[in-house]
Amino acid sequence: MAHLQQVLEAVDAGLPASLERLFELLRFPTVATDPRHHGDCKKAAAWLKGETETMGFATSLRDTTGQPVVLAKYAPEGLPSHAPHILFYGHYDVQPADPIELWTSPPFEPQVRKGKDGKNRIFARGASDDKGQLMTFLEASRAWLSVHGSLPFRLTVLLEGDEEGDSSHLDRFLADNRREFAADVAFICDTGLWNGDTPAIETSLRGCICEEVRITGPKIDLHSGDYGGPAVNPIKVLTRILAAMYDASGRIAIPGFYDGVKPIRAELRRQWAKLKFPAKKFLNDVGLGIPSGEKGFTPLEQIWARPTAEVNGIWGGYRGAGAKTVLPSEATAKLSFRLVEGQHPRHVRKVFRDFVKARLAKDCRASFVSQGGDSSGISVDGGSKWVTAARAALADEWGKPAVLTGSGASIPVVESFKKHLKIDSLLVGFARVDDSVHSPNEKYDVECFHKGIHSWARIISQFA
Amino acid sequence: MAHLQQVLEAVDAGLPASLERLFELLRFPTVATDPRHHGDCKKAAAWLKGETETMGFATSLRDTTGQPVVLAKYAPEGLPSHAPHILFYGHYDVQPADPIELWTSPPFEPQVRKGKDGKNRIFARGASDDKGQLMTFLEASRAWLSVHGSLPFRLTVLLEGDEEGDSSHLDRFLADNRREFAADVAFICDTGLWNGDTPAIETSLRGCICEEVRITGPKIDLHSGDYGGPAVNPIKVLTRILAAMYDASGRIAIPGFYDGVKPIRAELRRQWAKLKFPAKKFLNDVGLGIPSGEKGFTPLEQIWARPTAEVNGIWGGYRGAGAKTVLPSEATAKLSFRLVEGQHPRHVRKVFRDFVKARLAKDCRASFVSQGGDSSGISVDGGSKWVTAARAALADEWGKPAVLTGSGASIPVVESFKKHLKIDSLLVGFARVDDSVHSPNEKYDVECFHKGIHSWARIISQFA
Repeated sequence: MAHLQQVLEAVDAGLPASLERLFELLRFPTVATDPRHHGDCKKAAAWLKGETETMGFATSLRDTTGQPVVLAKYAPEGLPSHAPHILFYGHYDVQPADPIELWTSPPFEPQVRKGKDGKNRIFARGASDDKGQLMTFLEASRAWLSVHGSLPFRLTVLLEGDEEGDSSHLDRFLADNRREFAADVAFICDTGLWNGDTPAIETSLRGCICEEVRITGPKIDLHSGDYGGPAVNPIKVLTRILAAMYDASGRIAIPGFYDGVKPIRAELRRQWAKLKFPAKKFLNDVGLGIPSGEKGFTPLEQIWARPTAEVNGIWGGYRGAGAKTVLPSEATAKLSFRLVEGQHPRHVRKVFRDFVKARLAKDCRASFVSQGGDSSGISVDGGSKWVTAARAALADEWGKPAVLTGSGASIPVVESFKKHLKIDSLLVGFARVDDSVHSPNEKYDVECFHKGIHSWARIISQFA
Repeated sequence: MAHLQQVLEAVDAGLPASLERLFELLRFPTVATDPRHHGDCKKAAAWLKGETETMGFATSLRDTTGQPVVLAKYAPEGLPSHAPHILFYGHYDVQPADPIELWTSPPFEPQVRKGKDGKNRIFARGASDDKGQLMTFLEASRAWLSVHGSLPFRLTVLLEGDEEGDSSHLDRFLADNRREFAADVAFICDTGLWNGDTPAIETSLRGCICEEVRITGPKIDLHSGDYGGPAVNPIKVLTRILAAMYDASGRIAIPGFYDGVKPIRAELRRQWAKLKFPAKKFLNDVGLGIPSGEKGFTPLEQIWARPTAEVNGIWGGYRGAGAKTVLPSEATAKLSFRLVEGQHPRHVRKVFRDFVKARLAKDCRASFVSQGGDSSGISVDGGSKWVTAARAALADEWGKPAVLTGSGASIPVVESFKKHLKIDSLLVGFARVDDSVHSPNEKYDVECFHKGIHSWARIISQFA
């Protein structure tokens, strides 16, 4: 294990430089869903090309129908023929930073601040999701190379810029270029630890579809005194439809929504119950206290194994200061549906649209915008050699066994890898539940970054 | 009638100058509900002071708890003791101009453009509501004075700047200064013609209360993958509550909402039925076609005699480009309730708030902001000498009898005049139904402005 020990020491000695590189990446405001930031996405991709080239990888920037893909290839000479070929994946795009006024420090000017627990935290949009995480693997590879000169496997690094927006861009790119991505397995670093210091490997993921629906009524905003009564109000129509999506037990009332959903396996429910998920603390941490959602399922089951329908945004009519007594011309909502294995994104989109159209007031029209990035729910083989190797490495680093978990969030690329490259994914990540991903004041603990780099170094050593 | 004919001719000759003065007033962006425009309200009030002083009125600007009041007094010498004292009322504040991008010309740069019917129209925010209308009375008085040297009555002109926002400011001012407003009747010019060329006198008005309700759940926006299921979504809670406000027949389902509402008198229903209100055209003009609202009532009855609950604005969560899969921390709606005679604003506010609180998810909080400007529904005496005089004058000008109508909109000052000054109001106005008041591209027909001035000159002559 001496060859590993040296690498871990190199990681420790190089941590300040590793953090400096991460900060450089965090300073690019890579909000890919906002066209004003497409130039920043290009700059971040170019920066990643430069960094991977300094590590000796052959890197190219590849055009897609969305943001550019960073594609870095590494094939050491003299590798035994049974050595694996690994595809590493991360994403350099981030969620929008709004509401910007709730950030303590500017979202694209990373700052390290000490928390109440004395731990240093990196605050920036993308610190945890996913720039901090993808850098754990790159920094581990860099340290390994600095000590040993070469990695014990062939490697393809794929860093994309459309994960938070329309993942169909990468899906199409992979479909069109699958020959360049021959690999045995994908390593993905975009997931979290299990409660604090327990490492986790995710073996199931929810899929997601996003829809925008707009209800249009009168051709202009109307005076609520002159028209209130006989004229239809699109906000009334929209809220009525959205409210009708749920029954009293929290179940989704859209006909056909649950088509293909299988009951959660009894064995899995038992395993998850043993995790003693602290639902109350989980909710307390975000200012809540009472589990909501579908009756008959624990909060963990709701998140890991049950589909949802959520309104992510809504707007219509007057939203300024004071009162404006109008019946608005239109009202709009953005929704996302989390899907589990067995549900088909296209089918769910169709039954949702049918549901809206069936409940429309006669005098209104509905229009829909698919926000793209459809993904199915998915599960990966929990007993593979990759999972076994990662479990051993993670246990060594964190001092306790890794738990096999599910996830409520979507990583559509897992589905794309399965579909186009016919490979499974190993989902290992170091985010903490309080990282505020997608929220103001997103952070990544310096400890997670540091031990994340260690963890990957240990996983690499499993193949040496 | 020679004394009137001369005045009408003076009005015709002075029309270009009258329009110029109106345009000067329209150029002040007097959006009183927006603090950034309070300076503009002051400037408009000062301009009105100057204009009324050139007519020989003793004018002062008076502070209120809101925008300044323009108070102009006129008491000619040698008036017979039985000559009436008239209070004229108008408002110089306007609705916000948004959505600004839908205006053909800038809202505060008045333009005259010819319509498809060949008629000239004045386009500007406030052209119809209420700057154009209040100027019809001032210009009629100016013309009368230019011909005869004095008006045949004592006159108090009251022009306020809080009609579109919080009418409690003027209400308080009137309560505190009622002695300065001794008068026999109030003339108010803030209403409309009946279908095109038929003059109208309004004898009933709906009241209004405005509420803002905010539902707060988690303390930060949450990732819909990580939290979707067990965490409560404030948009879901808000839309569920708003949807529950109506039953299947369009009746308001808030317990206690209809307390005090009397059935519409059978005689009134018959009279209104004779008006043959073109409901289909009324709705077609704004892009609708099917009467909505409460079953069992005609559209005219719904507007003139039935209370409503309308959501004027709603917002929460992500509203930018693309998708953001969050459960938002809060969701907000602005509502207005139109009230009829017999309903108490404070009671309606209370039953609405009770309704929201009773339906709140356990993990959410509700906060309320009263937008002020409460007014009750009201009806005025349709057989008074003022109404009789106005009917004669209007019939002369427009060539057909004036109809006695109701109105769905609120003029809270009518209630204040009744409460504090113990006087009735004569509601005469010249707006047309297609004036787009409160909407983009508000207009006032030059013909309405011109014949409106004539109409007031004829009403003045009734007292000569």
